[in-house]
Amino acid sequence: MDAIEVGVLGATGMVGQRFVSLLANHPWFRCTWLAASERSEGKAYKSVAPWKLSTPIPGGAADRIVDACVPGRGPKVVFSGLDASVAGEVESAFASAGHIVISNARNFRMDPVVPLLIPEVNADHLKLIGEQRRSKGWSGAIVTNPNCSTIVLAMALAPLRAFNIRSVMVSTMQAVSGAGYPGVPSLDILGNVVPFISGEEEKMETETLKILGGDGGRVPYNAVVSAHTNRVPVIDGHTMTVSVAFEQKPSLDAIADAMRSFTGRPQELWLPSAPQPPIVLMPEANRPQPRLDAEIGGGMAITVGRLRECPVMHAKFVVLGHNTVRGAAGAAILNAELMHAEGLLR
Amino acid sequence: MDAIEVGVLGATGMVGQRFVSLLANHPWFRCTWLAASERSEGKAYKSVAPWKLSTPIPGGAADRIVDACVPGRGPKVVFSGLDASVAGEVESAFASAGHIVISNARNFRMDPVVPLLIPEVNADHLKLIGEQRRSKGWSGAIVTNPNCSTIVLAMALAPLRAFNIRSVMVSTMQAVSGAGYPGVPSLDILGNVVPFISGEEEKMETETLKILGGDGGRVPYNAVVSAHTNRVPVIDGHTMTVSVAFEQKPSLDAIADAMRSFTGRPQELWLPSAPQPPIVLMPEANRPQPRLDAEIGGGMAITVGRLRECPVMHAKFVVLGHNTVRGAAGAAILNAELMHAEGLLR
Amino acid sequence: MDAIEVGVLGATGMVGQRFVSLLANHPWFRCTWLAASERSEGKAYKSVAPWKLSTPIPGGAADRIVDACVPGRGPKVVFSGLDASVAGEVESAFASAGHIVISNARNFRMDPVVPLLIPEVNADHLKLIGEQRRSKGWSGAIVTNPNCSTIVLAMALAPLRAFNIRSVMVSTMQAVSGAGYPGVPSLDILGNVVPFISGEEEKMETETLKILGGDGGRVPYNAVVSAHTNRVPVIDGHTMTVSVAFEQKPSLDAIADAMRSFTGRPQELWLPSAPQPPIVLMPEANRPQPRLDAEIGGGMAITVGRLRECPVMHAKFVVLGHNTVRGAAGAAILNAELMHAEGLLR
Amino acid sequence: MDAIEVGVLGATGMVGQRFVSLLANHPWFRCTWLAASERSEGKAYKSVAPWKLSTPIPGGAADRIVDACVPGRGPKVVFSGLDASVAGEVESAFASAGHIVISNARNFRMDPVVPLLIPEVNADHLKLIGEQRRSKGWSGAIVTNPNCSTIVLAMALAPLRAFNIRSVMVSTMQAVSGAGYPGVPSLDILGNVVPFISGEEEKMETETLKILGGDGGRVPYNAVVSAHTNRVPVIDGHTMTVSVAFEQKPSLDAIADAMRSFTGRPQELWLPSAPQPPIVLMPEANRPQPRLDAEIGGGMAITVGRLRECPVMHAKFVVLGHNTVRGAAGAAILNAELMHAEGLLR
Repeated sequence: MDAIEVGVLGATGMVGQRFVSLLANHPWFRCTWLAASERSEGKAYKSVAPWKLSTPIPGGAADRIVDACVPGRGPKVVFSGLDASVAGEVESAFASAGHIVISNARNFRMDPVVPLLIPEVNADHLKLIGEQRRSKGWSGAIVTNPNCSTIVLAMALAPLRAFNIRSVMVSTMQAVSGAGYPGVPSLDILGNVVPFISGEEEKMETETLKILGGDGGRVPYNAVVSAHTNRVPVIDGHTMTVSVAFEQKPSLDAIADAMRSFTGRPQELWLPSAPQPPIVLMPEANRPQPRLDAEIGGGMAITVGRLRECPVMHAKFVVLGHNTVRGAAGAAILNAELMHAEGLLR
Repeated sequence: MDAIEVGVLGATGMVGQRFVSLLANHPWFRCTWLAASERSEGKAYKSVAPWKLSTPIPGGAADRIVDACVPGRGPKVVFSGLDASVAGEVESAFASAGHIVISNARNFRMDPVVPLLIPEVNADHLKLIGEQRRSKGWSGAIVTNPNCSTIVLAMALAPLRAFNIRSVMVSTMQAVSGAGYPGVPSLDILGNVVPFISGEEEKMETETLKILGGDGGRVPYNAVVSAHTNRVPVIDGHTMTVSVAFEQKPSLDAIADAMRSFTGRPQELWLPSAPQPPIVLMPEANRPQPRLDAEIGGGMAITVGRLRECPVMHAKFVVLGHNTVRGAAGAAILNAELMHAEGLLR
Repeated sequence: MDAIEVGVLGATGMVGQRFVSLLANHPWFRCTWLAASERSEGKAYKSVAPWKLSTPIPGGAADRIVDACVPGRGPKVVFSGLDASVAGEVESAFASAGHIVISNARNFRMDPVVPLLIPEVNADHLKLIGEQRRSKGWSGAIVTNPNCSTIVLAMALAPLRAFNIRSVMVSTMQAVSGAGYPGVPSLDILGNVVPFISGEEEKMETETLKILGGDGGRVPYNAVVSAHTNRVPVIDGHTMTVSVAFEQKPSLDAIADAMRSFTGRPQELWLPSAPQPPIVLMPEANRPQPRLDAEIGGGMAITVGRLRECPVMHAKFVVLGHNTVRGAAGAAILNAELMHAEGLLR
Repeated sequence: MDAIEVGVLGATGMVGQRFVSLLANHPWFRCTWLAASERSEGKAYKSVAPWKLSTPIPGGAADRIVDACVPGRGPKVVFSGLDASVAGEVESAFASAGHIVISNARNFRMDPVVPLLIPEVNADHLKLIGEQRRSKGWSGAIVTNPNCSTIVLAMALAPLRAFNIRSVMVSTMQAVSGAGYPGVPSLDILGNVVPFISGEEEKMETETLKILGGDGGRVPYNAVVSAHTNRVPVIDGHTMTVSVAFEQKPSLDAIADAMRSFTGRPQELWLPSAPQPPIVLMPEANRPQPRLDAEIGGGMAITVGRLRECPVMHAKFVVLGHNTVRGAAGAAILNAELMHAEGLLR
């Protein structure tokens, strides 16, 4: 099989850097095009990307000349790590010009004809693409992945649909890498907690229901989510405490079994970035922890621990996911892998 | 008025250090006796206390010779910052020998004849002392303050009793000073979250109902509390996200008014350590934060922010309190001040 | 004595916030004017200053309407916490218009007719003001304090002039508050060290020699300084390791005595912000530490520890100072207090 | 080639965990024996090792039953991550019983017949083994690696021997993992710097000269080292600022060339753990940084940056190394690889 050429929109930001890093040795995709704001155009990637990962810039990317985000210039398939302030306009221009845009930006997530995709959870939502093309008049398409904290929550909830979820209370402790660079000032977060992340609670409360919902997400899942979102001094890994109430209370064993045996299309198809298994249950009393567990499954698995009875709702647990891998760039790459396997990148 | 002599049991630990610091310039109490384990007996306080506060050891305490925790040696009124592993035996020996023990330890908190006191919330629970003396045969007495995270929660809930609380979900982000010294290893918490604190959730779920309860706490408050407790890399200040359901949903304005106007015996009596007001409502979108707000009211007030509707329960908010001041040593000192004002230290 | 009215240029920044906080209860100065960039003009101080101190905004400042930095509008005496990008122009305009500008900015520090003042070290450098007025044609004046890390080093070296310093090696571990707000991104400094601070080494290597020099600083002190400057994840307090070589090696006792007995004009005059003593020698093996010791002397003293032989140079030690109090706003206020005592604010 | 069986003494500690992790997929060595204190004997490794690495416990080790540190029980070749309090006795007993002990402990480092080995720097020091056996009467042997901070310094200095080093000033900023577990209490290091590490400065000042010295280290290198050692809130990676004076000042280009082209026996022999190259020069103004660069070369390379003139000495730079890989377990494994290649493990 020939490698599929891909590009990255917003390649110099934090999510863009993860795209570049994760695509460096990808078995299917070859990243041949990096695009960013006009300020960076014509310059070597390494001179304009404020590289913040603890692995070096991949050799193939370091000296690549950065292009502007102009439709038609790059390959057909482009990943988007663009900031929401520009993603709306740029991504629709790319989709209109025939590109398949696999986006991490929030702009089109709640659009009723745009899949908000987690391949393990709602692979069937890809069916929206046909209608998307008709209604938007695009020759290309846009597929999105959820907000970094929403993905982690939605994956933990997905196996619990079997028990008919009625309501969910979640309180997050989110890493600073989720806010990009320069992002959170150190004076705000060193030795501190900031109990507010703009727009984050709304995203968790609405995106989750679209993801778990029916008919491509147009029929929201019939439950209520309430989120408290907090920033803590952690580099990578969003940790959440979750309580769930069901139509009928299942046993803890049933919940644990459902999580442990949970699997989806990426696992069936052995997609390159698919974690096996997608949900790792940890037996230790004090896990998961972001510093120790965020990299499990190459950063693509979520880890769940402390599953126990909730005196107010039915069950409670802790869940953790890597916010810039599973929660952003890795999520989009898994989306692309699924689309390729389904013949949707042609 | 002559100063009342007081002593400190467990004076070298983290809570003991706070006692020493807060008592240094106290208008009513004069700390003349410091006791700790036999290992420290006969040595100067400054040479055995691993001082960890950012204010220096008070002059009067630095060179004081540390005594052993032997009943009869110190003054009648003693504060206890003892570790739970020894507090049970030592405190009852002191109470039996006629001392009034104002304790931060957990051992007697849930004893039905021992007040679990927050002066603003349940000053009337002091009435248990008479029965305590009768049933225990003690000439002295023991009065306790709640666990550091429970105090913060219970104070935030106290004004909401007016609306008949039905259930409470709380998720904490707790400072490392709550675990004492050496306490939490740095390898466990630097850039990390530990989603477990041994015994903490149980304390929050049970102590809260005794504090808010009737008949000296022997009739638990009729509600259910569910707690998730987490350790975060913060020095001082426990932050919590709280959702509350009521018998009937009150308006957010009614809740805010109840909190803002909340006051109690310490405020009426203008006790020296009483914060005025005890609950500070912050209007900013991203407050309270431990680094900025833990010291409000001299560390004795709790701060509440982000009061808003909860889609799952009725209302949600963030609350913060200083865990070693309001949550430990300062709490015990306020208890002693109330007891003195009520004539119970004679 | 009537209070002297003062204003603050650049009142909304990190240094400006410290000015506002330290001036709130000043016995001599009354802060009646807050100025900042035009963006903030006409707005309440509390609405435009991103307050980052752990003490609340002083009542008198919170609702004060912020003015623009226009000469003639504020009182005669103004403190400047302006950013270097604008301080040059604004401060000279104020001095020209008759204001006495007591500045923390770097722009005029190395000007041969501008005092680079540490009142304990070179109070006589104030004599430059006369010549400054003649050569600049200003009816007002500018007096500067050194860079935050330079002050700490220069104070530690001042008593050692008695032994004729020949060379100094210093390696710093500097707090993030020194970089202002938003300043250092959390992704750069959480769990990390950044071994570079732009322009900082040059300032330490040159300002120190002017401060310790003769004839108002125009004859630099005859020694060589080499600095390594590093940023570490600390909120307040610059810590430095220092090795010093002298013309002839003094005993460690002689060095300790010189530091311990060091005093200057602020101590003689009992200026309100003068620390007594200015240098605190700590006997403990592992001190000073920024979290525990930065506030000593109200943040105006420097603390020295671990004085010992240096196998390469002669003596080595650790020194710590509070970078936004002694190293910035407090330094300027002490400068103003000295000038007032010397009759130079009239 | 058959795999060589190896064991680990002190397998449950921080260094022991790194041994277990690094040996998991080693091409030459197969770890078949884990030993620790008697408290752990007979228990599964995963149940007694407080695992603190961000990679999971290797499958082969998790369920291995831990043995006691009794000579004769394990394979001939054993790595030692023992604490210094027991390493002296245990290691000599093992060497006496015929084991080849490749140790990270400090006990035998300065013994004149024990190699203090950095394979790139002083591979010829292995010649001491013959004399060691004669003088100690051991059928086995002990080979040590230096202290974690010394290795980093000595590797940076090794290529500079060409210019005849006269004196070295070093100031360290060391990670908490260097202190083991539980090690540094979080209350001591969160948002703080501790300017003291017991015994560390002495080790850097003496071990360095043995490593760079002649005749197996018995003729110390003719230079003087002065060290300031500090603990900072970093997980992994010791960063150091270094100034060096030479007999004659070389050009910065000559120094950079010497570092860049530096290589040794591990690189010639292409040993499995040998970093290629061992010293990485970084051109960026603000590097190396522990969070970004500690893992370069698999944690086995050291990174140097900011090479520039030193006004007091001749040249100055920043150097960083991974303290538990290159500075401990990885160092010992490279020692073993060299010994195997030289036929010394038979």
